[in-house]
Amino acid sequence: MANLKSKHVVWHPGAVNKADRETVTGHKACTLWMTGLPASGKSTVAVALEKALWDRGVHAYILDGDNVRHGLNKDLGFSPEDRNENIRRIGEVAKLFTDAGVINITAFISPYRADRDQARSLTKAGEFLEVFVDCSPEECERRDPKGHYKKARAGEIKEFTGISAPYEPPLTPEITIRTHKQSEEDCVATIMTYLEKNGYVPTA
Amino acid sequence: MANLKSKHVVWHPGAVNKADRETVTGHKACTLWMTGLPASGKSTVAVALEKALWDRGVHAYILDGDNVRHGLNKDLGFSPEDRNENIRRIGEVAKLFTDAGVINITAFISPYRADRDQARSLTKAGEFLEVFVDCSPEECERRDPKGHYKKARAGEIKEFTGISAPYEPPLTPEITIRTHKQSEEDCVATIMTYLEKNGYVPTA
Repeated sequence: MANLKSKHVVWHPGAVNKADRETVTGHKACTLWMTGLPASGKSTVAVALEKALWDRGVHAYILDGDNVRHGLNKDLGFSPEDRNENIRRIGEVAKLFTDAGVINITAFISPYRADRDQARSLTKAGEFLEVFVDCSPEECERRDPKGHYKKARAGEIKEFTGISAPYEPPLTPEITIRTHKQSEEDCVATIMTYLEKNGYVPTA
Repeated sequence: MANLKSKHVVWHPGAVNKADRETVTGHKACTLWMTGLPASGKSTVAVALEKALWDRGVHAYILDGDNVRHGLNKDLGFSPEDRNENIRRIGEVAKLFTDAGVINITAFISPYRADRDQARSLTKAGEFLEVFVDCSPEECERRDPKGHYKKARAGEIKEFTGISAPYEPPLTPEITIRTHKQSEEDCVATIMTYLEKNGYVPTA
């Protein structure tokens, strides 16, 4: 996208390209963009998936609502505008990680379809895999490991997705996991199988 | 740093830690924070260094004024406030790459000492190596590969570091390279030797 502010900045091509990195690492890089309601299991599955990938020697890294919110995006709140900027920045950082050769797993609610599509639009074909972490609202609220649903119901947390802010499920995600029906191991296996069948990582 | 906006966000510990990554990759991760005047040679040395690291199987990645300014920070200009936010975000992203096990090389003018110290303050001891790309102002202006000094002298670029905006050199950088006296290869060797001697990468 053209941007007047950076019109004097010239792209400096690196000597190491993505294909070079893939040759060295032995796997392709991509963003696994997990999206789902609060307490749907995004971070839990992301952590288990990251571990499974490293166990195979695949360089993986999680960007999640916790580490990014405390750092890069600590200036942002939870209004629609700030959520939009939150996801915009995460999309840009995810793109850098893909460029660096890392399979990056983003685990954010990312409730708005348009924001996720914007993140996808930054990437080349096959570099962005949307993972719908599908869990019924009732089950998410029943789990509520951090007590957030309870606080949201009490009005102590404003603009809480699923209670007082909307969630727009993906229409055509590359991968769907159903955390209220599948075990954690099954969810990881579903994603890993997709990555294997589509040539992102070698078959174990 | 405590932040009211994110007080409901809880840190989610990952199953793969930095030490695990280092065991798999065979090297330590850190930020090599290059700082210097425009046209001092930051990107040139960064590109050559990244190539040298990959040739050894070391996972490296450049964050530079070009790729970050066109993406994550495309909403920012060149005022002191925007430069500050530019460097703040880069420091946070660099920290994520270090956490991911990647030797990340940032190649930004990063003219303000306080901003660089802020980026350092995000990291643990030994994770942030300041690399002063030392080149005389006269030599930088003579090189001027993108014609920026000329435009700045003509007033076509405002707040240009070295002409109409200040540059504060590092006081105690971990590494200094002198691009007006050393060849590109020598500069890379200076940095690589530091990394070897201090145990970041195996000796070739």
